[in-house]
Amino acid sequence: MSKPQNISVNSRAGVLVDRLVAECDRLRVIPSKGSRGETLIDAGAAAKGGLDAGLIIAEICLGGLGNVSLTPYAGTPKWPFHLTVRTSDPVIACLGSQYAGWSLSHGDFFALGSGPGRALACKEELYHDLHYKDEADRATLVLEGDKPPPVEIVDKVAHDCGVSPDRLTFIYAPTRSLAGNVQVVSRVLEVALHKVHELKFPLANVLDGVASAPMSPPHPDFITAMGRTNDAIIYGGVAHLFVTGPTDAARELAKALPSTNSRDYGRPFAEIFKAFNFDFYKIDPMLFSPAVALVTAVDSGETFRAGQVSQELLDVSFG
Amino acid sequence: MSKPQNISVNSRAGVLVDRLVAECDRLRVIPSKGSRGETLIDAGAAAKGGLDAGLIIAEICLGGLGNVSLTPYAGTPKWPFHLTVRTSDPVIACLGSQYAGWSLSHGDFFALGSGPGRALACKEELYHDLHYKDEADRATLVLEGDKPPPVEIVDKVAHDCGVSPDRLTFIYAPTRSLAGNVQVVSRVLEVALHKVHELKFPLANVLDGVASAPMSPPHPDFITAMGRTNDAIIYGGVAHLFVTGPTDAARELAKALPSTNSRDYGRPFAEIFKAFNFDFYKIDPMLFSPAVALVTAVDSGETFRAGQVSQELLDVSFG
Amino acid sequence: MSKPQNISVNSRAGVLVDRLVAECDRLRVIPSKGSRGETLIDAGAAAKGGLDAGLIIAEICLGGLGNVSLTPYAGTPKWPFHLTVRTSDPVIACLGSQYAGWSLSHGDFFALGSGPGRALACKEELYHDLHYKDEADRATLVLEGDKPPPVEIVDKVAHDCGVSPDRLTFIYAPTRSLAGNVQVVSRVLEVALHKVHELKFPLANVLDGVASAPMSPPHPDFITAMGRTNDAIIYGGVAHLFVTGPTDAARELAKALPSTNSRDYGRPFAEIFKAFNFDFYKIDPMLFSPAVALVTAVDSGETFRAGQVSQELLDVSFG
Repeated sequence: MSKPQNISVNSRAGVLVDRLVAECDRLRVIPSKGSRGETLIDAGAAAKGGLDAGLIIAEICLGGLGNVSLTPYAGTPKWPFHLTVRTSDPVIACLGSQYAGWSLSHGDFFALGSGPGRALACKEELYHDLHYKDEADRATLVLEGDKPPPVEIVDKVAHDCGVSPDRLTFIYAPTRSLAGNVQVVSRVLEVALHKVHELKFPLANVLDGVASAPMSPPHPDFITAMGRTNDAIIYGGVAHLFVTGPTDAARELAKALPSTNSRDYGRPFAEIFKAFNFDFYKIDPMLFSPAVALVTAVDSGETFRAGQVSQELLDVSFG
Repeated sequence: MSKPQNISVNSRAGVLVDRLVAECDRLRVIPSKGSRGETLIDAGAAAKGGLDAGLIIAEICLGGLGNVSLTPYAGTPKWPFHLTVRTSDPVIACLGSQYAGWSLSHGDFFALGSGPGRALACKEELYHDLHYKDEADRATLVLEGDKPPPVEIVDKVAHDCGVSPDRLTFIYAPTRSLAGNVQVVSRVLEVALHKVHELKFPLANVLDGVASAPMSPPHPDFITAMGRTNDAIIYGGVAHLFVTGPTDAARELAKALPSTNSRDYGRPFAEIFKAFNFDFYKIDPMLFSPAVALVTAVDSGETFRAGQVSQELLDVSFG
Repeated sequence: MSKPQNISVNSRAGVLVDRLVAECDRLRVIPSKGSRGETLIDAGAAAKGGLDAGLIIAEICLGGLGNVSLTPYAGTPKWPFHLTVRTSDPVIACLGSQYAGWSLSHGDFFALGSGPGRALACKEELYHDLHYKDEADRATLVLEGDKPPPVEIVDKVAHDCGVSPDRLTFIYAPTRSLAGNVQVVSRVLEVALHKVHELKFPLANVLDGVASAPMSPPHPDFITAMGRTNDAIIYGGVAHLFVTGPTDAARELAKALPSTNSRDYGRPFAEIFKAFNFDFYKIDPMLFSPAVALVTAVDSGETFRAGQVSQELLDVSFG
């Protein structure tokens, strides 16, 4: 996989960030400046936000390389609207940018940073396998939470991204908010790719993909809200990947990919999380995947599929 | 609900109006200047118009705050394409701008003006509850009809909107035209919000929403054409609203919202209209609503749903 | 049908071509200059390309007059993502620009040129019935193949289009590539219109249309790949046309339009093609059409439909 040096996820996302700020009234987000001159955008804490703000934030998470749409889907009639994600490069867009993989903590503050800023700092092991590094002069991170980061995190992120704090933007929205909810469910393609990587399928062989999941209803309780967004993907998500390489590898990938394979499949995510005493690392990582996977081996033209949507578990989770 | 003074539905719609004029050949609409210098855009009378023109006019009606898409939907297989509406602020976009609420009459001419110009004039009682007033220096109104307004209406609208007539645009398309048909079915979210208001549910508690309805086929007869667009919503529309406030209120709203609750539910709209001797005010106002409503109470995370799509009545109405 | 002289399919498509070049890294296409100064864009031969590149190329084929989207559709659950095409003028967009009708051969090289350049050269009989000729100073052609055209073809196309070679762009992608696959399935509306013309229904009476088809999986073998894209339309496509003129003509059109009427209906396209010893001209031309057709006669308001999607044949073809 060659380095696509001319793709800057931060520059592309920056265009969308500038629009979010310019149209803050319409999108009902609240931009402000932090003590280091960083831009802070509240999209769902004190701010109302909304579905539209969530869609643009999801596209910011994708480094401006993707498109997220909201359309009716008759396959889950009780939850009629689905979010669909496509990108021009799913590995860079979803894993290089969108994945919530940058662990940021200071004192009481903890957040998993997602979005293009990660690709400037490249602090995660994942980047060894991505062969991608951005070189933009601005950085954007998205946080699933209801407050901006403390100054120490601002300084650390600016330093690690190699930008001055006034070139840094943090967008934050709690999972219970409409925008937060939309941006998390819009990870349905990313979750598929992350499991592809967990399964040690070579990312360089992932040519493309498209995925959709029902828009879960938000919930005021963080665990329940997070559970629903995960369940939208785990019990309602559908991903179609296109891969190069051996047909057998594609067959195995399709078989292993859906959440239905997981030891922990079969209960709402929030319930599983509680059962493990809120310890993420005890949950089977194989659970994090769409319910249905199609994998087309483009070198042989064969398509393999596995998994199924569970209307019942969507209903149990979404209430 | 605070005044979102920095959202101008006329300025935002104006960008789309300018595109409609600039691309008039492609969109097959006919712009001209009226005797007062006002811009007149025929989108379906002498002009061909089309689905694409209808989509952009629908977004003009929404004050440039919404998105209307046309995608296949398997839930109504005999009527396979659905219009889907989402906005960044449904109350302002749908009720403040899109609703056809401004009664304009002079001599033989009668039309219900819809679109952003209403929010400059604020002649309707509805605006007391919306707490929104636009302050743009241009105005756009959309008329469901086959001719431009008489000069007296032009003068009145310019005066009430506080703009000079050369800053005023009227877009007109009869319901029998493709563009007219599309822009009326695209009221599926607005119709839901209007009934929310009729039911005296506080608009300030409506956080967001998305809705879709089958694209009805147009009909040359005005009553039948209008009946079909109404039936697309009443018998085929699905809306998902997100509201703040008490869970009980959300439950009651969901229960009351669908058209299925109406005394007059069960016959094509044109037939009902005829039965009441073409007197709108005798029709149960509760009929005007999507067939299916989902209401999520974001403060408790509960979702309530009621109503169902009637394939049979769609078929009877659409022919 | 009046001449819409102010619609330039090459100028409109040119904006998209410039974007394809400017964002070549993101879209994973490879632009270069040929020996005559012509622009060559590889979108799927040595280049990776992808679904996104395919969508923009499909819109280039439509002369910048159309929109192609990718959304989930529950009607073909094993092939969950559908391509949907709408245009502002289906006759000019699909037949005047998108149709692969310009036969280009020199020595071993043979290709059917599609896209807006055709409307400058107007070498095909079809243009007698279209009453459309572009007059742009740049030209774009799309080729379903894995190599750029030889210099003789470049010179011929430049000459016939009346542009200098440095104002000429060729985009090429083999059917086995993701971009090639997407752009061919996106011909679902064009195929319907082409059959409308074959059936001698007057094109001037076609007011508008929208169509969708499942995104077939690509195949490395050309015949199989081509077969699948045809099958996506023939066995999975749905088109809704809106026509003026007599109701009887619309009824007859709907009845005759779907592929189900064809003598050769019932087997995967690649199998049919082989059975006729790879001689296209022995295949029943009535086969090339969507599986389902709806035709609305706007002058009477009646809608006629015929045909049905064959899940079974999609599965046989797509593997």
